[in-house]
Amino acid sequence: MLTNDQLAKWDREHFFHPSTHLGQFARGEAPQRIITGGEGATIVDRDGTRLLDGFAGLYCVNVGYGRAEIADAIAEQARELAYYHAYAGHGTEAAITLARMVMERAPDHMARVYFGLSGSDANETNIKLVWYYNNILGRPEKKKIISRWRGYHGSGLMTGSMTGLDLFHRKFDLPLAQVIHTEAPYFYRRPDTAMSEAAFTAHLVAELEALIAREGADTIAAFIGEPVLGTGGLVPPPAGYWEAVQEVLARHDILLIADEVVTGFGRLGSMFGSQHYGLKPDLITIAKGLTSAYAPLSGSIVSQRMWDVLARGTDENGVMGHGWTYSAHPIGAAAGVANLALIDRLGLVEAAGRVGAHLNTCMAEAVGDHPNVGEVRGEGMLCAVELVAERDPRRFFDASEGVGAKVVGAMLRHGVIARAMPQGDIIGLAPPFCLTVEEAERIAGVTARAITEVLG
Amino acid sequence: MLTNDQLAKWDREHFFHPSTHLGQFARGEAPQRIITGGEGATIVDRDGTRLLDGFAGLYCVNVGYGRAEIADAIAEQARELAYYHAYAGHGTEAAITLARMVMERAPDHMARVYFGLSGSDANETNIKLVWYYNNILGRPEKKKIISRWRGYHGSGLMTGSMTGLDLFHRKFDLPLAQVIHTEAPYFYRRPDTAMSEAAFTAHLVAELEALIAREGADTIAAFIGEPVLGTGGLVPPPAGYWEAVQEVLARHDILLIADEVVTGFGRLGSMFGSQHYGLKPDLITIAKGLTSAYAPLSGSIVSQRMWDVLARGTDENGVMGHGWTYSAHPIGAAAGVANLALIDRLGLVEAAGRVGAHLNTCMAEAVGDHPNVGEVRGEGMLCAVELVAERDPRRFFDASEGVGAKVVGAMLRHGVIARAMPQGDIIGLAPPFCLTVEEAERIAGVTARAITEVLG
Repeated sequence: MLTNDQLAKWDREHFFHPSTHLGQFARGEAPQRIITGGEGATIVDRDGTRLLDGFAGLYCVNVGYGRAEIADAIAEQARELAYYHAYAGHGTEAAITLARMVMERAPDHMARVYFGLSGSDANETNIKLVWYYNNILGRPEKKKIISRWRGYHGSGLMTGSMTGLDLFHRKFDLPLAQVIHTEAPYFYRRPDTAMSEAAFTAHLVAELEALIAREGADTIAAFIGEPVLGTGGLVPPPAGYWEAVQEVLARHDILLIADEVVTGFGRLGSMFGSQHYGLKPDLITIAKGLTSAYAPLSGSIVSQRMWDVLARGTDENGVMGHGWTYSAHPIGAAAGVANLALIDRLGLVEAAGRVGAHLNTCMAEAVGDHPNVGEVRGEGMLCAVELVAERDPRRFFDASEGVGAKVVGAMLRHGVIARAMPQGDIIGLAPPFCLTVEEAERIAGVTARAITEVLG
Repeated sequence: MLTNDQLAKWDREHFFHPSTHLGQFARGEAPQRIITGGEGATIVDRDGTRLLDGFAGLYCVNVGYGRAEIADAIAEQARELAYYHAYAGHGTEAAITLARMVMERAPDHMARVYFGLSGSDANETNIKLVWYYNNILGRPEKKKIISRWRGYHGSGLMTGSMTGLDLFHRKFDLPLAQVIHTEAPYFYRRPDTAMSEAAFTAHLVAELEALIAREGADTIAAFIGEPVLGTGGLVPPPAGYWEAVQEVLARHDILLIADEVVTGFGRLGSMFGSQHYGLKPDLITIAKGLTSAYAPLSGSIVSQRMWDVLARGTDENGVMGHGWTYSAHPIGAAAGVANLALIDRLGLVEAAGRVGAHLNTCMAEAVGDHPNVGEVRGEGMLCAVELVAERDPRRFFDASEGVGAKVVGAMLRHGVIARAMPQGDIIGLAPPFCLTVEEAERIAGVTARAITEVLG
């Protein structure tokens, strides 16, 4: 914690931090950390403390900190033209170039990209486009959205409703009625540990089918899912999951929204999770990796089949009344162009797959035998360690013990940032793609040490 | 329109523009304009065309284009630390400094500022905070939001519902049920032209009272309004309006959200519209003028009375599960700090009031006598010309004639950007605060010429 100087005082007195305990923070009882710089996978705070950022900010600084190429592109854009809007056919070279680069990387059946600011607002756009689409097709009743428990799709009213985590619903009256949830594809937490992966997939599909039958397929517009569950626990899908789900959706004419805010632009070792798992979505949500967080920018990539209907909609109804003042902001677009070029030049998608696999191997070796480690899992540059009170029979800790947060706290004391995922005692790691092999090994070692310190 | 070169082709093929006719744009039937730079109130496009931007982008580039001070601040922040998150008590010097600067400028009874990206997401945050507040106070039924017809509060699902304009509802199934609307405080469009301003205010207050009685005050959480109606037509309130409305809200324990996305940081010639009209809001929405659009940043300023309840909420329930990855983004914060300092140094709040008054005077002189001009109105650096088919008896044009858009098109041919407001034939002007007296006179002259060209 910083000394009680002027900046720290202003921070407590004026700044309403996101996802923070407001009472404790204002009273000076909660940690305060002012970040001043970073390089590669390391950040530095105002006290000179250097930390290995095992979560890349909020799994977004994919190319790592201190990239002069992106900073220079931002600086140049700011000097030339910091802003003009993109309404009514206006644009900038940066935004158009980025649209082209995104579409070159997206699956072939995708047609256009709309740019927003955050993953939340991109998912908000997605719902609006799905509703508009069904209105143009003359199906005004087909509007509900199916999401999964433990999915994360934003923190707004409707996007927070799609999020299937208690922390984001509590005291906010969420989820709203337009969103319905189905079971999480979370093999380690399957209802019966005797179930095989294939049997669990069959169970999930049966649950989904039952939900659709209960609600009526003609009331359901879309299904939204992350290729790999993110904030819900960093959980890759069980074998055969996406193939089976897509078959169900196609049969009921339900659109698929792939939320690739975490997985887009390389985190799984593939450009998109959709390509990684053979998804053919109607909408792809992008954000974090699009700019590596150097400037705010998100996007909704729209399939050709949706685009054709949306374009027809404007032929029938005129201008589409949807837009943010900062849609396709030039600063974000310039950051995106430089970021995607850098990812290519440095081969960071391949690196994410390769070093991520090494991180997962090291982690399994370092902590896999600990009696309180129920599972080590991951895909690409994602790795999670799930802690349990007892392995067999599988028994979870009581949430009030805060075991995950304690382990993450111990890791921080050893100079490594991990994230205690909000539901369950899950240590989450999602480092920058430029993580070195040595840094991966250090993260695994520190995780092991912290678990031993907290749990023996 | 640009020649059919590579960039223009990519634009049509890949870029989903906000608030655009998608079909026409994709087919090359709609205007395409790629902006490359700007200085002061002037922008330049890729063909070298120079345009006097009478709408400051989307009334957001308040300090004008090409401000090196802000570009330098962005560049420096990008090089030092482009991003770290603000969750769980983390921050950067830029974000904390900006929080301090915002609170120094806000009305005294305000306590904290939460930073988002867009006006839409700030209003989304506001609704969440209002619901949370009433849940903590044990009033789970007190949740509806009253907005005004013709208000503009965003383009999301709930924020677009608060927006009271048909363009933003059409084919999107909005407004959602949680939002209810009351009459617009639009004197020129009062139901009976014989009504005085005082009588119209009394009528609006009676309508509001009737709505509250019909719904039940114990079901209504908040009232949201722009100090001056913006996208709904640039309409200052009738005399006594805000005083009377606030009295009603206080009596029914209904929170007031002042949406100052357009008016915040000087557009009315006062730092905030709340100060200009004597509002005492519980929440103030800020965006555009906070950074003059040089980087995306918005905010929700929270009153002390709300903050105390929110902080108590976290004492009772733990961390508040609300945040965007890019909340308080360092690039936006750095732009905000430089922008607010520049506004002070150049005296731009005072300039907005002074030159804005001159613009309104010149406009009234230039077009006020034209038989198709029903009203010239404004406040600060806002000016609107409302076109009518006939003055007396007051008769509006049919929307299908697109008279407003035609006049704005004619102005563009004479080198001045104005905005055809989306509902009614209203020519909107909201120039940068650095507008010169000569530029104000040029805008008035071009408006007069365009009206004559279109309407004789």
